[in-house]
Amino acid sequence: MIRLFVLDDLDTNAAVAVTPEQAHYLANVMRLGVGDELALFNGRDGEWRARVASIGKRGCAVQPVERTREQTVGPDLDLVVALVKRARLETIVEKAAELGARRVRLVVTERTNADHTRVDRLQAIAVEAAEQTGRLDVPAVTAPAKLAGLLADWPPGRPLMFCDEAGDAPPALAALAGRGRGPWALLIGPEGGFSPAERTAIRALPAAVPVGLGPRILRADTAAIAALTLWQAALGDLSDA
Amino acid sequence: MIRLFVLDDLDTNAAVAVTPEQAHYLANVMRLGVGDELALFNGRDGEWRARVASIGKRGCAVQPVERTREQTVGPDLDLVVALVKRARLETIVEKAAELGARRVRLVVTERTNADHTRVDRLQAIAVEAAEQTGRLDVPAVTAPAKLAGLLADWPPGRPLMFCDEAGDAPPALAALAGRGRGPWALLIGPEGGFSPAERTAIRALPAAVPVGLGPRILRADTAAIAALTLWQAALGDLSDA
Repeated sequence: MIRLFVLDDLDTNAAVAVTPEQAHYLANVMRLGVGDELALFNGRDGEWRARVASIGKRGCAVQPVERTREQTVGPDLDLVVALVKRARLETIVEKAAELGARRVRLVVTERTNADHTRVDRLQAIAVEAAEQTGRLDVPAVTAPAKLAGLLADWPPGRPLMFCDEAGDAPPALAALAGRGRGPWALLIGPEGGFSPAERTAIRALPAAVPVGLGPRILRADTAAIAALTLWQAALGDLSDA
Repeated sequence: MIRLFVLDDLDTNAAVAVTPEQAHYLANVMRLGVGDELALFNGRDGEWRARVASIGKRGCAVQPVERTREQTVGPDLDLVVALVKRARLETIVEKAAELGARRVRLVVTERTNADHTRVDRLQAIAVEAAEQTGRLDVPAVTAPAKLAGLLADWPPGRPLMFCDEAGDAPPALAALAGRGRGPWALLIGPEGGFSPAERTAIRALPAAVPVGLGPRILRADTAAIAALTLWQAALGDLSDA
């Protein structure tokens, strides 16, 4: 079943207009016609069975028919990740969507060699991954912010799992054992790691929970995916039967 | 420090010839000259500090100077993975090297639409990832085999963690709790999943340990990385302090 994320409200009162890209996908890639079925979600109204109401050169309208899943949201989990090379950053965003992060917050550190990225493109990747993975919301990708400012404003009630390559941190599952669910964040550094001053600043944060990810050096995308997996298995929905 | 995997024995008696690709990398990319240092490993003799002995158009020789790490091997962990699209298969092999699998065994299933792949290219990716991740061996990538034959010959002493999307399997950490270390394997299906007959055959295997990977549908590469991470955290070296 094709699943599309839309911005409009979903109810039986009105057909929903999809984007030109979605219309192209439905008409030309999947070759849907009027009356064919698909699923819609918008992050608020659950998942709906819907039918193509019109399709043509001037766009495509889809009529919601019946709500098939109530809206749910996953854990309140932010992935805070340094700007890394484009291909690996795109992988990270895709996997964050598949592994149930609620937000991807981009961060500029001393050893990142970029201070901007195509956030709109990353957001589109998050949408596509959310459509495929079956979740009912889409992780928000936020524009890059500087690490210092992020740490200065860090909310004390949101523990920050800090994947600390340099260190003596306990293994992730041991560090997370017995911790509460609720708001959390994961912090992944750039390929060159955090600077010593940055490490000190992060570790000084009361919310910081340093963890180790094993004896090998992990690329940033591997570290992000491993951290998401371990957090979800320890405190999130990968541990639910 | 540059790390290179070589096939020759490592000792102080003889210089080691590197491949033409490695010579190009040392001379033209990293611009090393005679006397510059790098590290060598071969999967048997530990890690060696070495010096460039000669470098030029006819190749490059590197002289081992001193052993800096004793040989170690990680867990006896096979990743058995269906042939999926090339880019995702390459990601899987890279991540298997970073996350400490000892072998990557390719498998052809009913829903894979390929029965061959460039194994030499995948092996080269495994070498490069092993060089970067700091391990002292390289996972072997084996040529594709049919799932039915693989199951028929399955060694009873090697538990097979079966990532079962379709099912009612317990979460991975719960399924692995209390299990022994020793030889293990992880089985990851193709994008379209295993067929019902294949699922039945896998589950009928006495060695099979079905596990779930959470409420979302994961792409094959995400499932492979998550499975490697969870196994290493439960029974492997991601749980060692």
